[in-house]
Amino acid sequence: MNSRSTDTAELFKDACAGDRAALARLLSLIERGGDDARNIGRLAYPKVGDGYIVGITGAPGAGKSTLTSTLIGHLRSKAQEVSVLAIDPSSPFTGGAILGDRIRMQSHATDAGVFIRSMATRGHLGGLSLATSEAVRLLDAVGSPCTLVETVGVGQVEVEIARNADTVVVVVNPGWGDSVQANKAGLLEIADVFVINKSDRPGADQTQRDLEQMLELSDIASVAWRPMIVRTVGTTGEGAVELWQAITAHREHSTSDGSLAKRREQRLRNELRAIIERRLEHRAREICTGARWEEIQNEMLARSRDPWSCADEMLAGIL
Amino acid sequence: MNSRSTDTAELFKDACAGDRAALARLLSLIERGGDDARNIGRLAYPKVGDGYIVGITGAPGAGKSTLTSTLIGHLRSKAQEVSVLAIDPSSPFTGGAILGDRIRMQSHATDAGVFIRSMATRGHLGGLSLATSEAVRLLDAVGSPCTLVETVGVGQVEVEIARNADTVVVVVNPGWGDSVQANKAGLLEIADVFVINKSDRPGADQTQRDLEQMLELSDIASVAWRPMIVRTVGTTGEGAVELWQAITAHREHSTSDGSLAKRREQRLRNELRAIIERRLEHRAREICTGARWEEIQNEMLARSRDPWSCADEMLAGIL
Repeated sequence: MNSRSTDTAELFKDACAGDRAALARLLSLIERGGDDARNIGRLAYPKVGDGYIVGITGAPGAGKSTLTSTLIGHLRSKAQEVSVLAIDPSSPFTGGAILGDRIRMQSHATDAGVFIRSMATRGHLGGLSLATSEAVRLLDAVGSPCTLVETVGVGQVEVEIARNADTVVVVVNPGWGDSVQANKAGLLEIADVFVINKSDRPGADQTQRDLEQMLELSDIASVAWRPMIVRTVGTTGEGAVELWQAITAHREHSTSDGSLAKRREQRLRNELRAIIERRLEHRAREICTGARWEEIQNEMLARSRDPWSCADEMLAGIL
Repeated sequence: MNSRSTDTAELFKDACAGDRAALARLLSLIERGGDDARNIGRLAYPKVGDGYIVGITGAPGAGKSTLTSTLIGHLRSKAQEVSVLAIDPSSPFTGGAILGDRIRMQSHATDAGVFIRSMATRGHLGGLSLATSEAVRLLDAVGSPCTLVETVGVGQVEVEIARNADTVVVVVNPGWGDSVQANKAGLLEIADVFVINKSDRPGADQTQRDLEQMLELSDIASVAWRPMIVRTVGTTGEGAVELWQAITAHREHSTSDGSLAKRREQRLRNELRAIIERRLEHRAREICTGARWEEIQNEMLARSRDPWSCADEMLAGIL
């Protein structure tokens, strides 16, 4: 075992004992990926408990961060501990998480019962989804009873990440799009709870009717759980209690009918597949370097070869 | 050569001669991926001309389709031919493109100078980006002088696809988010032209000031091209002329300073990389089937093995 692996085990032990700096360090290693992330995953895997994961997604500007903040407040008022992962597949150019929204959560920053962490894309999108799964597992393994996973937008990667939760909360606003738009974003199918945030604005009734109609028209009406619709005003905290009640109702329902266990099983299957894909991608990056790689690209740019035959040559050794 | 390959060559010949049904069929084959897509790519590659690609992206509901439709109208008034690819990474569950927005373009459906096509995710996100590149190449190869690539949302996949254009148009609305949100979506860095659509609504001046300020604060001010800001009202066609002028100004600028050639070169390099990645992913899907795959997953679900050691075993043969 090399020294870095030893460090990982040491950090994990410390994190389990409540050391937040160690936990933060482990999450950074997960974000970075590679061998350390893998070691952390293997340490956390046997320690996973019954930590509950709530995914929160919706369009940019829908007020997800403010809503998350009020949820934290509600949980803390009941003396419940909570972790927050804010997932930010931000600019492919600047890298790193943009922390603007996190400022809105700063009121909880010094509360020992709250752990807040941003995660951003480092290079690869699939990597972020996988890193999120590993981060959630780590939080569970070190004893966090509940993790809120908040994603920034409604791109497919965000939707994928949000789906990887036990309960998925989709945040919309009054006047937000029509049913076609909601369908497009894939939000209708993943929501266990719809939140109409900023519901003090005009159009909340109409949005509620739209959502109800969409649910009527969709196949979702035929499945066991019919998504609940809750109205909130993130800035005042209105509706936070009802939102948590809806989340809890879904948790109880999915626990009792076995769908939670099934969902978690499917999640693990998906994760294995993602690990395999990611390892192959890593291999692809290794292949796509060096002198022959440069040469082959120049041939392609000169149009003397097409990209497919170039790919054939580069992959000849491993496929 | 098998019969399907022969079909592809025949279809390509017909599409080059102006047969739209053949073109549509080829695009379906590209969307499906696999050997046919590869054959079409190899046929199209040597025939690529100077077809211009305009990417149009922005948040759901920003009015991209309506704007695209007015752009088509403007181009047709100048007797220019145009193709539109509407890229829809829609629901991961329902599959297939949701055609709601396309209805807004129906006025052009019977115009022989306009070719409109939706493309959706079939299974894999990276696949959609690659399929879009191949579709754009095919349209160029069969003689389309200009292709508008419209993406549905602002997820990273959409942003990636929109970036793969010669000129990138980012559509925002008055009151649309703040600079943090825009930064998050990665829109600031990819825009060659900003459109404030629905600019007859309150807040257009403020949005313009916000955008200008964001451009001031960003590094973009130091590069050769400073993104232009255009105001439009998609529903009335107002600003369509100015938008096309801005696109043309960017085209002329990037042609003369060599940045267009560089961008296209980079695009081709990225595509080669994507082809390699996709082929590896395909291999991963082949690996992840069969009795041993089921067995290994059951061991994992029973928690007698962790996902990483499962991945090791499945990949032992090829990595």
